Amino acid sequence: MNKPIALLTDFGLRDPYVGVMKGVIIGINPSATIVDVCHEIAPGDIPEAAFCLASALPYFPEETIFAAVVDPSVGTERRAVAASMGGRIVICPDNGILTWAIRDHGLDRAVEITDSRFFLPNVSDTFHGRDVFAPVAANLSKGAALTDLGPEINDLAAIEIPEVATSDRSIQGEIIYVDRFGNLVSNISRSLAEEWLKSGVSVRVHVGSGEIHGLSRAYADVPKGHPVALFGSVDLLEIAVNGGSAVEMFAVPVGSRVLVHQLPE
Amino acid sequence: MNKPIALLTDFGLRDPYVGVMKGVIIGINPSATIVDVCHEIAPGDIPEAAFCLASALPYFPEETIFAAVVDPSVGTERRAVAASMGGRIVICPDNGILTWAIRDHGLDRAVEITDSRFFLPNVSDTFHGRDVFAPVAANLSKGAALTDLGPEINDLAAIEIPEVATSDRSIQGEIIYVDRFGNLVSNISRSLAEEWLKSGVSVRVHVGSGEIHGLSRAYADVPKGHPVALFGSVDLLEIAVNGGSAVEMFAVPVGSRVLVHQLPE
Amino acid sequence: MNKPIALLTDFGLRDPYVGVMKGVIIGINPSATIVDVCHEIAPGDIPEAAFCLASALPYFPEETIFAAVVDPSVGTERRAVAASMGGRIVICPDNGILTWAIRDHGLDRAVEITDSRFFLPNVSDTFHGRDVFAPVAANLSKGAALTDLGPEINDLAAIEIPEVATSDRSIQGEIIYVDRFGNLVSNISRSLAEEWLKSGVSVRVHVGSGEIHGLSRAYADVPKGHPVALFGSVDLLEIAVNGGSAVEMFAVPVGSRVLVHQLPE
Repeated sequence: MNKPIALLTDFGLRDPYVGVMKGVIIGINPSATIVDVCHEIAPGDIPEAAFCLASALPYFPEETIFAAVVDPSVGTERRAVAASMGGRIVICPDNGILTWAIRDHGLDRAVEITDSRFFLPNVSDTFHGRDVFAPVAANLSKGAALTDLGPEINDLAAIEIPEVATSDRSIQGEIIYVDRFGNLVSNISRSLAEEWLKSGVSVRVHVGSGEIHGLSRAYADVPKGHPVALFGSVDLLEIAVNGGSAVEMFAVPVGSRVLVHQLPE
Repeated sequence: MNKPIALLTDFGLRDPYVGVMKGVIIGINPSATIVDVCHEIAPGDIPEAAFCLASALPYFPEETIFAAVVDPSVGTERRAVAASMGGRIVICPDNGILTWAIRDHGLDRAVEITDSRFFLPNVSDTFHGRDVFAPVAANLSKGAALTDLGPEINDLAAIEIPEVATSDRSIQGEIIYVDRFGNLVSNISRSLAEEWLKSGVSVRVHVGSGEIHGLSRAYADVPKGHPVALFGSVDLLEIAVNGGSAVEMFAVPVGSRVLVHQLPE
Repeated sequence: MNKPIALLTDFGLRDPYVGVMKGVIIGINPSATIVDVCHEIAPGDIPEAAFCLASALPYFPEETIFAAVVDPSVGTERRAVAASMGGRIVICPDNGILTWAIRDHGLDRAVEITDSRFFLPNVSDTFHGRDVFAPVAANLSKGAALTDLGPEINDLAAIEIPEVATSDRSIQGEIIYVDRFGNLVSNISRSLAEEWLKSGVSVRVHVGSGEIHGLSRAYADVPKGHPVALFGSVDLLEIAVNGGSAVEMFAVPVGSRVLVHQLPE
């Protein structure tokens, strides 16, 4: 009985904060398996964290305990919560960070984390990653049950997830994430697009002032330095530049509109 | 018998240096538990490393072996040392990196690391993290004793730690650390301040050209974009901005003065 | 039977990509030992990755499984390959990333990775780190053999490695890597230089518009702020600045010429 622990935070890797969380975890469960999902979420950026959590979650084994700590309201009345979905458990501040994961993977059950037996003896007002979420994760990894943590709740906080609009000849979505490569990830899913696309019909993708003709499969399906539109690794429409950076080429931030037009046959 | 190993360096994560240290460790102790404290200490910044080490140390389990490698004088006559404090062992170059930890946690015993049985066969002049500290940490994690490493010493190098000055109506400290969030961490401790503050008395905190009225508990106790003064996660007075960056707002570097004034009742 | 897995990619640590690879690995081998070599290779920079792989490899235990994923042509016809050298196995796209390692450590055997039993059920066209290399690494760590992966090949792709030119009075090489400290690492090896240098002869090292008199052993063998030439941790000639950054002082990129002159006696 040793469930893996996956950590996702906005603590960055330059300070000792993530290391300290791990120190607390191995103090409680010396044989814990700890995996970093990522720690460079923009400070306090709950939508970004929510998206990253949802896209990473299905690739981790069932039984994984996720601690997702992007927590600008630490120390206030916001609750600490735990939610199970598809065998996995996520513990996090109740600020909407679960929204994407619940939409994609369904919610089995949620509790408020109230039982201080699972916390460090002194809980600060500024670092619940260390004082609450790390020790709770360690205890869950050793076998504590979701329902041990506190009372069941059914009013989790949620954030708004941008929706896609479809018409006869176009799909309109938006950029929801920009990755290290400068790839622009939109909220237009492969399944929606494939349903909508008449087979064999050509499309044009618009982002910022740029337009890309046709959908590709791989980044290198276009010449070096050229933009490409394809469905990326989490099956969302993505604009990239082969050997370059789409965010540099198109200079569009998260939230910018992406339009897919069907061309007349 | 498998003691956790915690690594703190200024090697950064962009080069293979930290990875190579871990390769050496698992070559000696295949079942080692290795935790990164942090690796983005500014190159050669011994005071920063000393502070990070001291603040992380108590959150790791007793028996943890810390390798703290910020080592601008690698390959010169500077000694390699090991020190025990509160059950934990720190190995490091003898350059003052232990100063904060010893002040906060006390020193049990120190040795010079001289026994080359615990080193890699070839010791370079430029990378003792790999050739000395990693293999020594691995051997300690497997059960070697502090006193196996070399002769006891009582003349560890030390750095100057900035002191706090108190008067009747004010405490004067300085910024000692700026974190990823732009929070300005001072050397004014909660215990000192609480002793000094007459209960119920109001204060004003000065940093750079800014001033903050009153002390808060949590970052979000003030409106978004407003500065806040509070005792942070290691119980030091910290200036932050709710949802923003204090180092951007106040533009003050490490070493800048922080003043806490008691206001007339 | 649990061989360590070492990961080297250009995925960076800001997105969940490396975390997802680890999630896949522990899903297949829950007791895997995973070590990060480094993940901040410049996007698509195969020469940089090839050098880092070769310099890290010998410091990892025999039996280590390396997954080296810098893969700008993911999803195209480029092959996935596995190669053994000195007891270790490297899996990677067939794009030359093995060139340095093979030159330094020799090639025992190479195969194309074709057996999809070792892949995730759905293989994307954009993220073989997750869908191919992570699960193959996990299977190898559990005991699968190199030759289980696919047919043997003897036509691995290679990149050009810059050569060193020697004359009677000089060695000419080039900068091949710049590290976090701003150290300029050249391709001039200690063994070549020592063979060539008449013992006791003085040298002058030229890089950009700068020149450095003599070779040192340690970074701190020169005063603070002064440049120094020495053989670094992988026995290559390196230009550094004690307490500073040589890349800032000399402003020379990778590929710049480095010249070592013997001075008249």
